[in-house]
Amino acid sequence: MNVVFMFPIKDHQKENLLHRFPQVDFHFEQSDEAIAQAEIIVTYGSDVTIPVLEKAKSLEWLMVASAGIEKLPLSYIAERGLLMTNAKGIHKIPMAESVLAYMLAVRRSLFLMYDRQKKKEWNKRVYSRELRGSTALILGPGTIGGEIGRLLQAFGVRTIGCNRSGKESEWMEETIVFDRLSERLGEADFVISILPSTPETRGLLTKEHFREMKETAVFMNFGRGDLFDEADLIEALKSGEIGQAVLDVFETEPLPEESELWTLPNCFISPHASSFSGKYVERSLEIFEANLEKWLQGDRNLLNITDPLKGY
Amino acid sequence: MNVVFMFPIKDHQKENLLHRFPQVDFHFEQSDEAIAQAEIIVTYGSDVTIPVLEKAKSLEWLMVASAGIEKLPLSYIAERGLLMTNAKGIHKIPMAESVLAYMLAVRRSLFLMYDRQKKKEWNKRVYSRELRGSTALILGPGTIGGEIGRLLQAFGVRTIGCNRSGKESEWMEETIVFDRLSERLGEADFVISILPSTPETRGLLTKEHFREMKETAVFMNFGRGDLFDEADLIEALKSGEIGQAVLDVFETEPLPEESELWTLPNCFISPHASSFSGKYVERSLEIFEANLEKWLQGDRNLLNITDPLKGY
Repeated sequence: MNVVFMFPIKDHQKENLLHRFPQVDFHFEQSDEAIAQAEIIVTYGSDVTIPVLEKAKSLEWLMVASAGIEKLPLSYIAERGLLMTNAKGIHKIPMAESVLAYMLAVRRSLFLMYDRQKKKEWNKRVYSRELRGSTALILGPGTIGGEIGRLLQAFGVRTIGCNRSGKESEWMEETIVFDRLSERLGEADFVISILPSTPETRGLLTKEHFREMKETAVFMNFGRGDLFDEADLIEALKSGEIGQAVLDVFETEPLPEESELWTLPNCFISPHASSFSGKYVERSLEIFEANLEKWLQGDRNLLNITDPLKGY
Repeated sequence: MNVVFMFPIKDHQKENLLHRFPQVDFHFEQSDEAIAQAEIIVTYGSDVTIPVLEKAKSLEWLMVASAGIEKLPLSYIAERGLLMTNAKGIHKIPMAESVLAYMLAVRRSLFLMYDRQKKKEWNKRVYSRELRGSTALILGPGTIGGEIGRLLQAFGVRTIGCNRSGKESEWMEETIVFDRLSERLGEADFVISILPSTPETRGLLTKEHFREMKETAVFMNFGRGDLFDEADLIEALKSGEIGQAVLDVFETEPLPEESELWTLPNCFISPHASSFSGKYVERSLEIFEANLEKWLQGDRNLLNITDPLKGY
């Protein structure tokens, strides 16, 4: 049984795997030969192209150590009937903390005070507002969105989830379908997307949606950068249709130097870093090990099976 | 019955008082005559000096629309046997949100990303860590400290309260007495003070306490600036004895331009603004009105009675 890792892990993590699964041949260096014999490939996603998969003739299970799978050749994977799992869930803590950090930083005027500190300016007029009593509309109330909702409820924030099905989700006071978004956007002080990139979410938000938001609304994109046309958001920020934006994801990453988003005073840029946590690899290995245990026992009902055709 | 306001309130707030309490003579402008006849004075604190109190010969109740009362002539107030109430509790929401905002901002690298944005630098190495799993030691686990503890527990942070009596406090997993502080400081990732200024808290933290903290500890002072010698904190920040500081209060306010705290890269300055909220006056008037209602009915068991000799 051959397992190929497409990304580096630490020595103690390798030793742990070798010790726990002595019957498995782990390959921590990639080679054509190792890939050809691999039953299992562990990847972050972007390095597993069709040419790589064509070499991987023995492949049965693709473990993607990230949450987004849109960079993988999904139709090809579906056609070959490969089992695919991801690391869904490991992002929820750091991402929800990052989202809350920005919500609170904006409400409690942290960036304003930070700018003034650099000028040694003591100015008590900070215009801070409370997060409590505000309303958040969460696009994509899944694992991460639910964790955001759980924290927001502790802060006394009203939570409205919005998804494809309208299926009730934990930690949302109510959940609406995408089609009803326009009716409800005007209530939200925060509009937060953690939607994945799927055929249905690409371009989901339009110019009109930004117009329907409050003039003071904070729009936060922590999902994927193809949710809307960036030019529409820039226009909304410049014209005052919305108050502020916090962006972790972009149409093009790295965000090109010429993008106006870098310099708009009401836009905060996080370089697709919100899920960063010292515990990332550790947590994805925990999921992988639990699944490998099942796999070795012939159990194919793995954790976090993802559907290449749905995209999540 | 005469009531003098020592600070301006909005027209609709005045009208509301006049409408609700037609039997009371409200004075929204201060004059010697009004003060001389006032049974009740409503103040933020610093304007009520001994000369003012000597003029206020009819005074029975002093309503302080803030939480800290240390600027008032407390021994004089005790001697005259004046009833004093404060606005304890109205700060808890904005202050706890400000504390959480800074804790998350520091852990999730918001200031680092903000600095890089100004240079249009896309750099995913942000060294973010999770708040979850960390330990916070809260000096002064009262109303505000309890609200901080409640929120921290939602984030999975271990909370240790520390007060004079060691009396258990809600939302702290355990509470220790001041004398045991040295034993436990080394466990804390965050050391947060919201202690008032009292004879017992002045100078409570020493050089040794900073030495006992983790090298990565974040020290946060949202109580009063006389808790320690600022020179000791500056030394601890410069020598790396602690990681970072977030300060809302200072020995001298406004913080003098020559203070090194302004420019230390691991120190964040909030200009005594953490309690700011658009709802401040509204909330303190709610407490005042509830108490005035009692007062008019002869009930002297008011909300938020403070002891001038204890200082809180």
